Amino acid sequence: MNVALKARCDLDLGFPFHHDGDPADRLEAVARWMRREGLGPEAYLTGDSVARLEARMAELLGKPAAAWFPTGTMAQGVAARLHCAASDDARLALHPTSHLALHEEEGHIHLHGLTPLEIGDWSRPLRADDLPAVAGCAFVELPQRHNGGALPDWDGLVALKARAASAGIPLHMDGARIWGLPSAWPGRDWPEICDGFASVYVSFYKDLGASGGAVLAGDSDFIDAAKTWLARMGGRLVSAWPMVPDALRALDLRLGKLPAFVERAREIAAGVGEVDGLSLTPNPPQVNMMHVRLDCDVTTAEAARDAAAEATGVWLGNRFWHFERDPVPALEITIGERAHDADPARIIAAIRAMAAHVCQAQSTSA
Amino acid sequence: MNVALKARCDLDLGFPFHHDGDPADRLEAVARWMRREGLGPEAYLTGDSVARLEARMAELLGKPAAAWFPTGTMAQGVAARLHCAASDDARLALHPTSHLALHEEEGHIHLHGLTPLEIGDWSRPLRADDLPAVAGCAFVELPQRHNGGALPDWDGLVALKARAASAGIPLHMDGARIWGLPSAWPGRDWPEICDGFASVYVSFYKDLGASGGAVLAGDSDFIDAAKTWLARMGGRLVSAWPMVPDALRALDLRLGKLPAFVERAREIAAGVGEVDGLSLTPNPPQVNMMHVRLDCDVTTAEAARDAAAEATGVWLGNRFWHFERDPVPALEITIGERAHDADPARIIAAIRAMAAHVCQAQSTSA
Repeated sequence: MNVALKARCDLDLGFPFHHDGDPADRLEAVARWMRREGLGPEAYLTGDSVARLEARMAELLGKPAAAWFPTGTMAQGVAARLHCAASDDARLALHPTSHLALHEEEGHIHLHGLTPLEIGDWSRPLRADDLPAVAGCAFVELPQRHNGGALPDWDGLVALKARAASAGIPLHMDGARIWGLPSAWPGRDWPEICDGFASVYVSFYKDLGASGGAVLAGDSDFIDAAKTWLARMGGRLVSAWPMVPDALRALDLRLGKLPAFVERAREIAAGVGEVDGLSLTPNPPQVNMMHVRLDCDVTTAEAARDAAAEATGVWLGNRFWHFERDPVPALEITIGERAHDADPARIIAAIRAMAAHVCQAQSTSA
Repeated sequence: MNVALKARCDLDLGFPFHHDGDPADRLEAVARWMRREGLGPEAYLTGDSVARLEARMAELLGKPAAAWFPTGTMAQGVAARLHCAASDDARLALHPTSHLALHEEEGHIHLHGLTPLEIGDWSRPLRADDLPAVAGCAFVELPQRHNGGALPDWDGLVALKARAASAGIPLHMDGARIWGLPSAWPGRDWPEICDGFASVYVSFYKDLGASGGAVLAGDSDFIDAAKTWLARMGGRLVSAWPMVPDALRALDLRLGKLPAFVERAREIAAGVGEVDGLSLTPNPPQVNMMHVRLDCDVTTAEAARDAAAEATGVWLGNRFWHFERDPVPALEITIGERAHDADPARIIAAIRAMAAHVCQAQSTSA
């Protein structure tokens, strides 16, 4: 990555996505917030801030209980293990782009002793008929990150839940980027979206921009057991702060902004339109993200991103996703405060400049 | 716990042990330190602060490599798993007071699939002849926390290492409270102490007073594998700060103070002397801690602690350890900045007041 070029850009769309400044600025902001809220010392996740965050998440998601975890990897590993143990079936049904399949060093296999069962197609969201006849648990990522945040339509989600219920397969929601969902399914609230899922994981550091942490929500017995596993995994941190207070702060600050972030993602995609050299997926965006898939190899894609940065002063992103089973370079654009508060015409121009570079490279090599 | 009484005391020896103020004060101190050191954003433990801390620990402990972990539970579970896997023997030799045996919801059994093999006596440090003939790994806690920080003498430690080497059992050091060891064995430096241990875990939030985190040190291949397991466990936090910068700050600030903390622990124990109603263990203290064991039940012990607080304004500690196999109420006193910077006569007087209350209760019930 061309760090100097990125630093020269006055608009940076890479992670993190909001106006929190450097870590030092953030720590001071959390300190101010803790004083305002009267949050003092607490040890081993036993204090007020954890209780407040867990209660707030249980209520928001419409589940009886919730447990804070330091990471989604830990929360989801525990969820998969518990559901499969309750089902007495070690088969864990996963989409091929699941975080567990791609980004966790196969902890579900080596640490939790589960047997992954691949379901669905890499390039599209899960459907009801992707579910297996039997499995210990099935994971559903909403929105599906490696498809640019694609979602089933509402009827498709209802059908998926019904199919899982009739097959007796507990569903777990990977809700790492859950916060824009009500914009995708207008009129549907969180409890209705989460209904039918035995458990839901949500993350605080991606779309909400807290400094870390996750919550797992579900039935009370399940959450009690999850907290025992949290301790076994080494997740019971001595200091909940700043992560937990920062999550409460980020919820106050940003949950209400998600609809505007989603709207802006759609405006940008509409503004880019159909261009040679790249495509947007999904189009239109369904939440506050999209993938820009470039018709070239990764080296050319990086050169195109850099050329767009030189021409427009917009740094579109730090990396291009590419996998053996999906080698097309994909730049992930997430709309947070930084993208939202910029002139959308600049972002559109940068994406088009990237497309132009790809077309030029194609014609040169042809 | 009588929170109001604790708050009225002007000297509080409970955790945390240093002058860091409330969490909000601490966050601001870490922010200032990060600016001074030029530490900026870093994600998923890939940045400068983690690299600096790992390199510093490897060098200090005399090991080829080191890996940061969010908790000791996670670090030690991974260490036990890796050593037992390399030995192809799931038997993990543990002292009955090991943190794994008492405080981790038996993660070594249920998560890591190991079979604990109890070695040694509850009431004293491990000796060479406690080691089994065969095991996948043996844990040695130095100092041994639930014996008040007791240690073998240097020759005993050398014999223990030699016995493990000849039996082919990899030794792991639980060094949660390692920082006072050179005061216990004058002239012995960290690498010499750690030599013979296949791996060493150290903690940053106890004696050093950082806001959390741990390091596991060992051979390079072992640490590479440990980092893979760190990811599988969900330990790869997105934000290393404030824990990692705070550990660097705490090392700068406090590692040099440990000899004075140890000296003060010994002064206090000598000042208490032999009294009816309680005993100190070990006596003299070997590092910057001791246990005050009361000749009564837990309820009486708590009343004695409260009576001492009323009489002296010194809050001696938040809780009394007591276990089925060691029901004597034990108050753990750790000398950090707060205890060290107080008049030792006050702490001595408070311990004696506690003893007097125990004697009075004994005579009343007799």
